[in-house]
Amino acid sequence: MDISTTETIEILGTISFAISGTFAAMQKRLDPFGVLIIAFVTSIGGGTVRDLLLGDTPVAWMRDVRTCLLILFTSIATIFFKTHIKKFKVTLFLFDSLGLGLFTMLGLQKGIAFGLSPGICVALGTITGCFGGIIRDTLLNTIPLIFRKEVYATACILGGILYFILIQFTISVVVAKLIVIAFIFVLRILVVRYKLTLPKFVY
Amino acid sequence: MDISTTETIEILGTISFAISGTFAAMQKRLDPFGVLIIAFVTSIGGGTVRDLLLGDTPVAWMRDVRTCLLILFTSIATIFFKTHIKKFKVTLFLFDSLGLGLFTMLGLQKGIAFGLSPGICVALGTITGCFGGIIRDTLLNTIPLIFRKEVYATACILGGILYFILIQFTISVVVAKLIVIAFIFVLRILVVRYKLTLPKFVY
Amino acid sequence: MDISTTETIEILGTISFAISGTFAAMQKRLDPFGVLIIAFVTSIGGGTVRDLLLGDTPVAWMRDVRTCLLILFTSIATIFFKTHIKKFKVTLFLFDSLGLGLFTMLGLQKGIAFGLSPGICVALGTITGCFGGIIRDTLLNTIPLIFRKEVYATACILGGILYFILIQFTISVVVAKLIVIAFIFVLRILVVRYKLTLPKFVY
Repeated sequence: MDISTTETIEILGTISFAISGTFAAMQKRLDPFGVLIIAFVTSIGGGTVRDLLLGDTPVAWMRDVRTCLLILFTSIATIFFKTHIKKFKVTLFLFDSLGLGLFTMLGLQKGIAFGLSPGICVALGTITGCFGGIIRDTLLNTIPLIFRKEVYATACILGGILYFILIQFTISVVVAKLIVIAFIFVLRILVVRYKLTLPKFVY
Repeated sequence: MDISTTETIEILGTISFAISGTFAAMQKRLDPFGVLIIAFVTSIGGGTVRDLLLGDTPVAWMRDVRTCLLILFTSIATIFFKTHIKKFKVTLFLFDSLGLGLFTMLGLQKGIAFGLSPGICVALGTITGCFGGIIRDTLLNTIPLIFRKEVYATACILGGILYFILIQFTISVVVAKLIVIAFIFVLRILVVRYKLTLPKFVY
Repeated sequence: MDISTTETIEILGTISFAISGTFAAMQKRLDPFGVLIIAFVTSIGGGTVRDLLLGDTPVAWMRDVRTCLLILFTSIATIFFKTHIKKFKVTLFLFDSLGLGLFTMLGLQKGIAFGLSPGICVALGTITGCFGGIIRDTLLNTIPLIFRKEVYATACILGGILYFILIQFTISVVVAKLIVIAFIFVLRILVVRYKLTLPKFVY
C-alpha cells in the first residue's frame, strides 16, 4: 500500500511539473523541441539533484524509461490542449504548486529511507521540490522567483517540519503525507493570493 | 581494436572542444588563465555530467591526468597559433560541431556499456555532447544557443537514433560510429549554413 | 593531532564562508530566509561539488547535521551584529579570502587521501575553494569575479603547488598547511590591494 502511494505521488508530481515546464517554455515562444527539453528538465531536475547528493546513481530517470515517456506524452498533450486553456499564468502556477508539494514529500521520504537526520530530510525535501523550478527559470532567463518575491522554499520547509510533527501522533503515514502535500499546495496559493512576503533588510 | 577506437574518439573530442573553448574565451578577451579554465570546462563538462548521472566516480578526468595535460597543451597551442587563423567564428563553429559528434558517440557507448535502455542512451549521448558547450556559453554570459536558434541537440538525438538503427544491420560497430559522428557534424553544418530552424510557437 | 587540524580548518572555513555569504546577500537586500539560503550555499558549495566529483556520497553536509547548525548560528549572529560593522565590503572580502585559503587546503587534502595525482589534487583544491563563491555570485546575479577582474583561482593553484613543494622538505604537515592557507589569504589581499591582474588578450 505504501509503495503504491509513493508511486502515485511520483507520477502525479512528474505530470504536474511537466505541465508547468511546458507552459513556461511556450510562454517564452521556444521551438517544440526546446519546450520538450524544458518540460523534461523541470520534471526530473529536483529528483536528479536529490539522487546525486545521496549518491543513489544512476539517477532515477535513467533507470526507468517510463518516466521519460510520461513526460513526453504529458508535454505533447499540453501543447495540443493549449488553445483550450485561457488562464495560462494561473494554470502554470497551480501545477507548479501541486508539483512542489508532491516532490517535497518524495524527497522527505527518500531522506528518511537513507536514515538521515530530520533536519537534513527537510532540506532534501525542499531541494527536491524547488530545484526543477529553479533550473526551468534559470534556463528561461527568468529570475528564479524563489530568491525574491514569494515564500516558496519556506512552504517546503514548513511542510517538512509538519510531517515530522504529524508522524509523532501515530497518524497513518499515508494520511500524514496527504496532509503535508495539501498544506504546501494551499500555503503557496494563499501566500501568492494575498501577496504575503517576509520582510526585507533595510539599510 | 574497439578500445583504441573509443580512445581515439575521446582524444579527438577533447582536442576539438578545448580549441572551441579557447576561441570562445579569447573572443570575450579573458585573461590567459580564464581562457585555460574555459577550455578545460568545455572539454570535460559533458563527460563530467555524464559520469555524475551514472555514478561512475571519481569522474573520468580525475582518474587520468593525461586528459588535463592534453587540454592544457591544446589550449596553449591554440593561443599561439591564433594570429594565423583569420576566420575565428567559422573555426570555432567547426571544432564545436566536430566535438559534438565525437562526444555524443562517447556518451551513447557508455550508456550501452551500463546496460541502459536505448532511449536513455540517446539522452545520455545528447547530454555528453551538449553540456560542455552549454557550460562554456553560460560562463561567458552568451545565451546558450542550444535553446533558441540552432537545431543543436536535435542533431545529437537524430545521430543517436541512427546508431541504434545502423547496428541492427550487422554493420561493423566502428563503421557505425564513424557514420554517426559524420552525420552529426554534417547535419549541424547544413542546418547553420542554410539557416534551418524548427518552427516556434505563435500566439 | 592531524585530524583535529582538519576539523579546525573545516569549522573555520565554514564560518568564514557563511559570514561572506550573509554579507553578500544582505547587500542585495534579500529577505532573511534568502540570506540564510545564500549563507548555506556559499558555505557548502565547494565541498559539495568536491564530494560529487569524487563520488564520496551522501555529500559531507548531509552526514553531519552540525555543519548546518554552525552555518545557521553564524548567519544569524552576522545579521545581528551587522549594525556594528561599518566597512561591509572589506569585511566580506576578508572572510571570503580566508575561506578561500581554508577550503582550498581541505580539497587538497581530500584529493591526496583519495590517492589522486598532484595536478588533480591542485584542481580539486581550487574547485573546493572557489565554487562556494561562484555559486553565491551566480545566484545573486553578480558576475562571478573569478572570471574577469581578480587573480582568484590563481591564488588557489599557486597555494596548491606550494603545498606539494613544502612537503618535500620534511616540514611538519600541519605547518605546511598553515603556510599554504596564509599564502592564499595574503596573496589574494595583495592582488586586490595593489590591483594586480593578468594581462588580457588584445586584438
